[in-house]
Amino acid sequence: MATTVHKTAFPFDKARLEALLLRRFFYAPAFEIYRGVAGLYDYGPPGSSLQANIINEWRKHFIIEEGMLEIDTTILTPAPVFETSGHVARFADWMVKDTKTGDVLRADHLVKNVLEARLAGDKEARGIAAEPKEEDALKRQPKRKDKAAKVAPVRVADEVVAEYERILAQIDNYSGPELGQLCRDHKIVNPETGNEVTEPQPFNLMFTTSIGPTGQHPGYLRPETAQGHFVNFQRLLEFNNGRVPFASAQIGRSFRNEISPRAGLLRVREFTMAEIEHFVDPEDKRHERFSELRDIELNLLDRHTQAAGSSVPKRMTVGEAVEKGVIANETLGYFVARIYLFLAKIGVNPKRLRFRQHMANEMAHYATDCWDAEIENSTGWTECVGCADRAAYDLSVHAKRTGAPLVVREALKEPIVTEKEVPEFNKKLMGKTFGKDLPVVTQVVSTMSEEELIKLKGQLAQGEAVIISPDGRKFKLTPEILTIERQTLKQSIREFTPNVIEPSFGLGRILYTLLEHSFWSREQDADRGVLSLPVIVAPTKVLIVPLSTKKFDELVQEVSSKLRKAGVFSRVDDSNQSIGRRYARNDELGTPFGLTLDFASVQHRTMTLRERDTTEQLIGNIEEVIAVVIDLCNGMIEWAEACQRLPRYTGTQNVE
Amino acid sequence: MATTVHKTAFPFDKARLEALLLRRFFYAPAFEIYRGVAGLYDYGPPGSSLQANIINEWRKHFIIEEGMLEIDTTILTPAPVFETSGHVARFADWMVKDTKTGDVLRADHLVKNVLEARLAGDKEARGIAAEPKEEDALKRQPKRKDKAAKVAPVRVADEVVAEYERILAQIDNYSGPELGQLCRDHKIVNPETGNEVTEPQPFNLMFTTSIGPTGQHPGYLRPETAQGHFVNFQRLLEFNNGRVPFASAQIGRSFRNEISPRAGLLRVREFTMAEIEHFVDPEDKRHERFSELRDIELNLLDRHTQAAGSSVPKRMTVGEAVEKGVIANETLGYFVARIYLFLAKIGVNPKRLRFRQHMANEMAHYATDCWDAEIENSTGWTECVGCADRAAYDLSVHAKRTGAPLVVREALKEPIVTEKEVPEFNKKLMGKTFGKDLPVVTQVVSTMSEEELIKLKGQLAQGEAVIISPDGRKFKLTPEILTIERQTLKQSIREFTPNVIEPSFGLGRILYTLLEHSFWSREQDADRGVLSLPVIVAPTKVLIVPLSTKKFDELVQEVSSKLRKAGVFSRVDDSNQSIGRRYARNDELGTPFGLTLDFASVQHRTMTLRERDTTEQLIGNIEEVIAVVIDLCNGMIEWAEACQRLPRYTGTQNVE
Repeated sequence: MATTVHKTAFPFDKARLEALLLRRFFYAPAFEIYRGVAGLYDYGPPGSSLQANIINEWRKHFIIEEGMLEIDTTILTPAPVFETSGHVARFADWMVKDTKTGDVLRADHLVKNVLEARLAGDKEARGIAAEPKEEDALKRQPKRKDKAAKVAPVRVADEVVAEYERILAQIDNYSGPELGQLCRDHKIVNPETGNEVTEPQPFNLMFTTSIGPTGQHPGYLRPETAQGHFVNFQRLLEFNNGRVPFASAQIGRSFRNEISPRAGLLRVREFTMAEIEHFVDPEDKRHERFSELRDIELNLLDRHTQAAGSSVPKRMTVGEAVEKGVIANETLGYFVARIYLFLAKIGVNPKRLRFRQHMANEMAHYATDCWDAEIENSTGWTECVGCADRAAYDLSVHAKRTGAPLVVREALKEPIVTEKEVPEFNKKLMGKTFGKDLPVVTQVVSTMSEEELIKLKGQLAQGEAVIISPDGRKFKLTPEILTIERQTLKQSIREFTPNVIEPSFGLGRILYTLLEHSFWSREQDADRGVLSLPVIVAPTKVLIVPLSTKKFDELVQEVSSKLRKAGVFSRVDDSNQSIGRRYARNDELGTPFGLTLDFASVQHRTMTLRERDTTEQLIGNIEEVIAVVIDLCNGMIEWAEACQRLPRYTGTQNVE
Repeated sequence: MATTVHKTAFPFDKARLEALLLRRFFYAPAFEIYRGVAGLYDYGPPGSSLQANIINEWRKHFIIEEGMLEIDTTILTPAPVFETSGHVARFADWMVKDTKTGDVLRADHLVKNVLEARLAGDKEARGIAAEPKEEDALKRQPKRKDKAAKVAPVRVADEVVAEYERILAQIDNYSGPELGQLCRDHKIVNPETGNEVTEPQPFNLMFTTSIGPTGQHPGYLRPETAQGHFVNFQRLLEFNNGRVPFASAQIGRSFRNEISPRAGLLRVREFTMAEIEHFVDPEDKRHERFSELRDIELNLLDRHTQAAGSSVPKRMTVGEAVEKGVIANETLGYFVARIYLFLAKIGVNPKRLRFRQHMANEMAHYATDCWDAEIENSTGWTECVGCADRAAYDLSVHAKRTGAPLVVREALKEPIVTEKEVPEFNKKLMGKTFGKDLPVVTQVVSTMSEEELIKLKGQLAQGEAVIISPDGRKFKLTPEILTIERQTLKQSIREFTPNVIEPSFGLGRILYTLLEHSFWSREQDADRGVLSLPVIVAPTKVLIVPLSTKKFDELVQEVSSKLRKAGVFSRVDDSNQSIGRRYARNDELGTPFGLTLDFASVQHRTMTLRERDTTEQLIGNIEEVIAVVIDLCNGMIEWAEACQRLPRYTGTQNVE
């Protein structure tokens, strides 16, 4: 009964989406009336609510489902913490300056933009349509066009094209000096001015501040929430009764002083993250629920494929990926698959989602394996979630710096019993015998291997033995001076530093790509945008539309109060505009259901229910319709089932 | 059937509560393994969950109940915004330095601590017990004892005692120079060193940073979320279809570089706030739902009472307070009462809650009236919520600085029609007649009052008129040069800058005082602490306790999965400790209900249900017990009713 909606009839139009998002105040540049600062955005009511709903689903999917320990740690961080973690020395991007204007550019972005522009110019010169191949739905989006990087159509030699493509496939893999070399080799200049650029310099991305009135505590705004988990490891472990594996989770703001934030919510200076630190035995990275997810198929772009200059992912199950060693271990694979399920659940198009493995140079210095969930949008493939095996790096460096025992002590079921040859010296007699050479003799014996000790023991059993010091002198030993005995040692506690698997979500990037994936225009009216957000994340679930103001106040109160009691978030639109215009506004806001109250509602207690994507309408008794809409919002039924429970509305189509 | 629990049998012991909170990781000093920085705290799992539940109730009580517009704006703020708001010039505390050591002290705290210590010493010398009067339950808490401020028992003259008490009653009312004068007049020195202190200097409490790679954008971390609302006013108004009143709301981090943060969560450098900005017509501050709350009784400590040196609040209904002008207007009164209801709902003891009006000097320069919700705890009365009428200050200053029209344009139902005498000049003829004196003549006529114009019009009707310029010269006017006509003017739009009523909540302070109000020890065991947190805010609602591990895994899974589906947050404690110890731990965690699974559960599918405060236990079929516990957690029934639905458990008391 439900109509199929062709949402892809019109090509994606980014400018139109952006106008919608601003007009409906999903988000807007912060401090706009002060002409703003790049990289800062404020979320208005629908954006704020969409974000809250995504966070709510995240909490259910990860924290509650897996019994994680949620924490809330400070943003302000004293400098020593980031000195230890390596951020002060290494959390930097490479920047270049225009040699004449002093304008600052991010080095890798400069190389990428210029080479991409040259390839585009080459294609144009060769007369190859810039249009994507028809069969490749994923590439139907217009690619990012950086105005500054546009170049005239100029042919490039075939081997140079190949070289550019090779560079672009591994653009994240270059160091600063290598980026500098690329600029020189390929005559890359600031495309806005034509001026040369300086050698790449590192620019630390952390915001600095000073804590306290005397300025004695330099501090940073955290660029990630992770350190807040690590420094609290002991308390978390104790809270979990001393056992691993367990995970802590945190949702909160982080800050990065981006060199040139540009692409809307995709590269900002202040953002909300959700991070999990899953602490695991380094000798056992199996996951007890891995079998539940083994058969999930993923698009995996591993590092070998990238190094070979390709960006075509392999499709395989997570089970196969772990077996073949493409993904390093079960726990890492488990989280990669859980991330996939979460993103699909909130409405990201799974066909436009891939997992890309970090290349050797790109990976954080401590990580052993790292996979980014990349989602395709109008700017290309964007990293939205990172999932790294950070090994024991973090806990080890903090333990070393502070002396805190950031370890797990595990009672061994069976103590480990070892036997060992142990030398015992008669110090008094040795002193008499060797005088000032005593330490030399002790040192030689103490550093002997098990094998050497056994040999020495045999010689002593014969009456005497001779050892040679590092500087070639000989010393004679007797059984009175030295005895060597075999002893049994018993170890009942195993102490180890857990490894950390870290899934780390950039919520703003996910939110923005989700908006792109949800946006389309109606066939009959290309100017009418719709955001087909899934019910679970839609900012408002139900719009209540009284035909006119005042007259229906009581009914409006009744309906909205019943929905509120059922935990369904609704809004009333009693503005003076036509019902059709009010529905159009709410299609833009992504509200999945509309309830219309009119004179029939007062006379016969009926109400119509409208579905956003199909614009189909059903009608029924107010109580029945409320029951259906509550089931729809709680995910108990789909629209098709609602169509079976309520008759189609065939009255005057006053609402479109 | 339910037992009454005497929770107040033991006096409040702050040290024991603090040990509990640290042991169970409600919160802990941040970066403790780095020996921390004062004023920063991390929330562990129970604290984080308690905070999330308080926020959730806040969202329901304010945002959802009143249809507020929730927003999420940035913490980083460019400097011009806080220059405009007045924070750069005035958001400061007065600090003094020890003249020899350079130690920094907050001036008002210094005066307060020293005078309080002298009064305590005087009481001791006079032989007056420092113990509170028995009938005053509110004062049973030990007062804050600042170690540094302790003094020997020394008699103080009666008139000096009176003077000290007068100063302390209005300690928040002094300016910096006045605090300096008090130090000199009363010989107040640094109690830790005995050294004199410098003149008070203002210290701005905002953290500074720099935005962008070139350092060209100085910025601050916001000390409140309010400016994020004001700068977005136009978009919010548009979202609300151009109408006032409406409110925006925001929950988020703010930062204040406190001079000497000390009292745990009560004075910190980074904290979570919840703020509402209610925009209202300055000419109509009535509130449409005020009648619902009119009869709520409040403890009000108005500014006249304080100025008279008293701190005994008046008890009156909010209706009476607004009528008598104690509270400035209905909307302000409405929010004061709503704040009261919210705090009581989450478990704050209403007897230890008062509303104190700001005194003239203390109030922010822009506010017209301001009331703080103060909650009593072991450190005294602590401001936890502010509720201010900020008038049109904020929108006006931002509009002036940026030129943005931060106003409401309201279509008048009936246009305002006015009649007015309007002069019209024959400029050509005037030029000929008066030459360079033309502007003088025009100026004189244009600035005439209605009355003068009518008189002039009468003279012109006679043929000619004479006017006199400010420097005494006479000019002759004729009807050819000047005509004066009565015109009808019609105004159909009223433009105004809304006023702002701002309820502003410090969530950490509320959370901490709530913990104090919830803490007690069992009569039979003074060492066993209990946190009687209300079900709605308790971090975990249900503890599932299997008698031993492994054997009950399936049942544990069944019960926890059913609770999860019903939206009830439970935890399993399958540690090796006795059930009694596990319950004791969870009393400390404030978990209201416990479910015990034992061998009877496997054989007969029964389960016991334990209530935290009474330690009473009920028993029943697993399904029945789950149904009861879900109703308890959702607030559908109280414990007394649960006792009627399930029989008392009279088996072996294995759980205490």
